[in-house]
Amino acid sequence: VIGRSKAEIDTPALLIDADLLEANLERGGRDFTLNGLSYRPHAKAHKSAVIARKQLEYGAVGIACAKLGEAEVLVGAGLEDILVTTPVVGTAKIQRLVELNGSARVAVVVDDPGNAAEIGSVATGAGRVLELLVEVDVGQERCGVRTPEAAVRLAELIEESPGVRFRGLQGYQGGSQGIRGFRERVESVNRSVDRLRAVVEQLGRAGLVAEVLTGGGTGSSPIDVRAGCLTELQPGSYVFMDSSYAEVEWTPEGDPPPFARSLSVLTTVISRSSPQRVVVDAGQKAASSDAGSPVVKDRDGARFSFAGDEHGIVELTDGGAPLLGEKIEIYPSHCDTTVNLHDEFVVTRGDVVEDVWTIDARGKTQ
Amino acid sequence: VIGRSKAEIDTPALLIDADLLEANLERGGRDFTLNGLSYRPHAKAHKSAVIARKQLEYGAVGIACAKLGEAEVLVGAGLEDILVTTPVVGTAKIQRLVELNGSARVAVVVDDPGNAAEIGSVATGAGRVLELLVEVDVGQERCGVRTPEAAVRLAELIEESPGVRFRGLQGYQGGSQGIRGFRERVESVNRSVDRLRAVVEQLGRAGLVAEVLTGGGTGSSPIDVRAGCLTELQPGSYVFMDSSYAEVEWTPEGDPPPFARSLSVLTTVISRSSPQRVVVDAGQKAASSDAGSPVVKDRDGARFSFAGDEHGIVELTDGGAPLLGEKIEIYPSHCDTTVNLHDEFVVTRGDVVEDVWTIDARGKTQ
Repeated sequence: VIGRSKAEIDTPALLIDADLLEANLERGGRDFTLNGLSYRPHAKAHKSAVIARKQLEYGAVGIACAKLGEAEVLVGAGLEDILVTTPVVGTAKIQRLVELNGSARVAVVVDDPGNAAEIGSVATGAGRVLELLVEVDVGQERCGVRTPEAAVRLAELIEESPGVRFRGLQGYQGGSQGIRGFRERVESVNRSVDRLRAVVEQLGRAGLVAEVLTGGGTGSSPIDVRAGCLTELQPGSYVFMDSSYAEVEWTPEGDPPPFARSLSVLTTVISRSSPQRVVVDAGQKAASSDAGSPVVKDRDGARFSFAGDEHGIVELTDGGAPLLGEKIEIYPSHCDTTVNLHDEFVVTRGDVVEDVWTIDARGKTQ
Repeated sequence: VIGRSKAEIDTPALLIDADLLEANLERGGRDFTLNGLSYRPHAKAHKSAVIARKQLEYGAVGIACAKLGEAEVLVGAGLEDILVTTPVVGTAKIQRLVELNGSARVAVVVDDPGNAAEIGSVATGAGRVLELLVEVDVGQERCGVRTPEAAVRLAELIEESPGVRFRGLQGYQGGSQGIRGFRERVESVNRSVDRLRAVVEQLGRAGLVAEVLTGGGTGSSPIDVRAGCLTELQPGSYVFMDSSYAEVEWTPEGDPPPFARSLSVLTTVISRSSPQRVVVDAGQKAASSDAGSPVVKDRDGARFSFAGDEHGIVELTDGGAPLLGEKIEIYPSHCDTTVNLHDEFVVTRGDVVEDVWTIDARGKTQ
C-alpha cells in the first residue's frame, strides 16, 4: 500500500496524517518543556515504538506506559527509559517487571506497602534495584495513597527496603484533562497541586526528597507548566487529539488547542438508502464509542452515528450525496481506545501513503 | 497456563466457562432448529475457528460473518460454508471475495444493483458463480433495499447476470434483539416478518423463489422459530450472552433466557483505598463499554464502573473487602466488542484451565 493514494487504502483503516503528527510532536516538544519541565509522553495513546522514538527525538526524557505488557513491547523494540504508571501487582507480574528492568530503566508506581516490599524482595533476589514512585491520589479517587502521612510512610518503607529506591511521586488527575472552561480547569489542577505539595512538604520534614513529581496530561499541560509543582509531564493525547478536545479552552482567552487531529478512521460507503443517509463500514469495532460518536472530517454538517459492530450511519445535510464505494473519514472521539482496536497505522502525507506502522502494544493489557 | 488453576491466570484475561459454553451450544442446537429451521451462527460474536467448528458439530448448517476479513480467517482454518452478512463493496474487496469463493462456499448479501453487477463481472472473469442474497431492510434502517419492488428488481438483475446466482433474502432487525418485554419483542419481530413476507410474495409473482430467508438473532430466536417466515437463523450472542440479556423475557411467562453467561473478564485488585472500594486492572481496553458497564460475578451487591482505559472500580456493599492481588470476575455488557479487544480465550472447566483458544479474527474489520 506504500506509495499508493488514499483512495486505494482498504477500509476501515486507521490513518495518521504525518504532517499533523509531526507538527504535534514538535509543538509538544516546546510546550511541555516550558519553565524547565520535562515530559515523558504516555505510550498508552499510540502503543507504537516508532512514535515513542519520535517523541524522544523531539525532546521527551522517556516514555510512560499504563501496563507492564506495553513496557515489555517497547523495551523489546529498544526503548530504554520507561515508567509504568499503574501499580504492578502479584508475584508473576513483579517477576516480569524485575526481569524487564535488566534490559532497560523501568520504574513503577506503588501505593501499597506490601506491594513495594514484594517488589523489593524479588528485585533483591535478582540482584537489582528498582526505582519506585509513590502514587498519590490527587483527586481522581482511583489509585494512590490518600494522605500525606501514608505517602511518607510508604516512601520511608521504600528507602529502608533493599531492592527498591524512592524516586518520587506520581499525582495524576484524569478528571482535569477534558474540562472545557479554562478557569474551571485551572481550579481543578490547583486542587491537585495543593494535594501533591502537601505530600512534598511532609516528605521534606521527614528528610526525603522526591526527585521526580510526575503527572498531568494533554488537557492540563498549559496549566501544569505554569503551576510550578510537577517536574515531569505525561501527555498522551497530544499526538492524535481526541475530537472532544476541540472544545477545550486552551488559554484564558478561550483559544483552541495548538494540537491538530492527526488520526482518523477511513471508511467506505457500503449502502445508500438515500443521498443524505449512507451506511459506512466502520462501527464499534473500528472506532471506540466510550467518549461518544466520532466526528465526520471535511464534510460540513455531516454526522456520524454508530449502527452496530461493523456499521456506521453518516447523515449529510449539505447534499453531498456520496456514492457507493466513496470514502468518508471520521475523527475518533477517543483515540486511545480506537488505536487499541487496530493492528496498524496507515501513515499518509497529503494524498499518498508514506508508511505503515505496527501498533506494537495493541491489546497488551497485562 | 493449561492445567493450572484460575488463580494463576495472569490478568486481565478473557475466560470461557467450558461447561456453560457447551450447554449453550447444545441448547442452541435444539432451540434454533425447532419447526424445521436451520441456523447459521454469527462468528462476529466469538471470532474463533474452534467455536465455529463446535457450532457445526452441534447442528449449524454454516457460519455467518460480518466482514470478509473474518470469512478469510475462518476459511483459512478450514470452515467451508460462510455467509457474509454485510455488503462487500469495491473492486479490491470483491476480488478477495471471489478468490475466497474458490476455497469454500462463500455467499454474500447485496442491496445495490451496481454492486451485484460488479460481483458478477469479477466472478465471471474468474470462472466462478457466487451466490447472492438480497438484503431487505426489515426495520433497522441500516443496509437493505427499502421496498419489495426494489428487492424484486435486484433479484431479477442477479438472475439475469452471469457469475452470480440469487439464493434468497436476508432480513435482520438488530433492534428486536434486546427488547425486554416478550410481547413488545413479538410485535417488533412481526413487523419485520410482514416486511420480509411482502418481498417473498412479490418475488413469487415474478416467478422467483428465495431458497433461504435468513435473519434473526439470539433475542428474537424464540419468536423467529414460531413465526414461520425465516428458514435460517443467525444467532451470535447465545454462545456467551451479554449481561443485558439477563433481563430479556424469553417466554410469554417472563422466563429468563435458557443460555448462560459463559464469558467473563478476570481482573486483579491493584489498589485498595478502602475495604469497600477497590481498583481492578481492567478498564475500557479489557471490556467494552458501548452497552454499559460489566456486571460483577459471584459477589452480591458489588458494582463495577470504568475508571479509564486500564482501570475499573469495584464497589462492594457486602463487606467483601478483597485484598490486594485478589481476583474479581466481571461479565461483559457486550460480548462481541469485548472479545474483539482480546487475543485469546482462556478456557476453564471448574477451577482448572483446560485450553487456550486464539481469537483468530480479532480486528478483522476489513
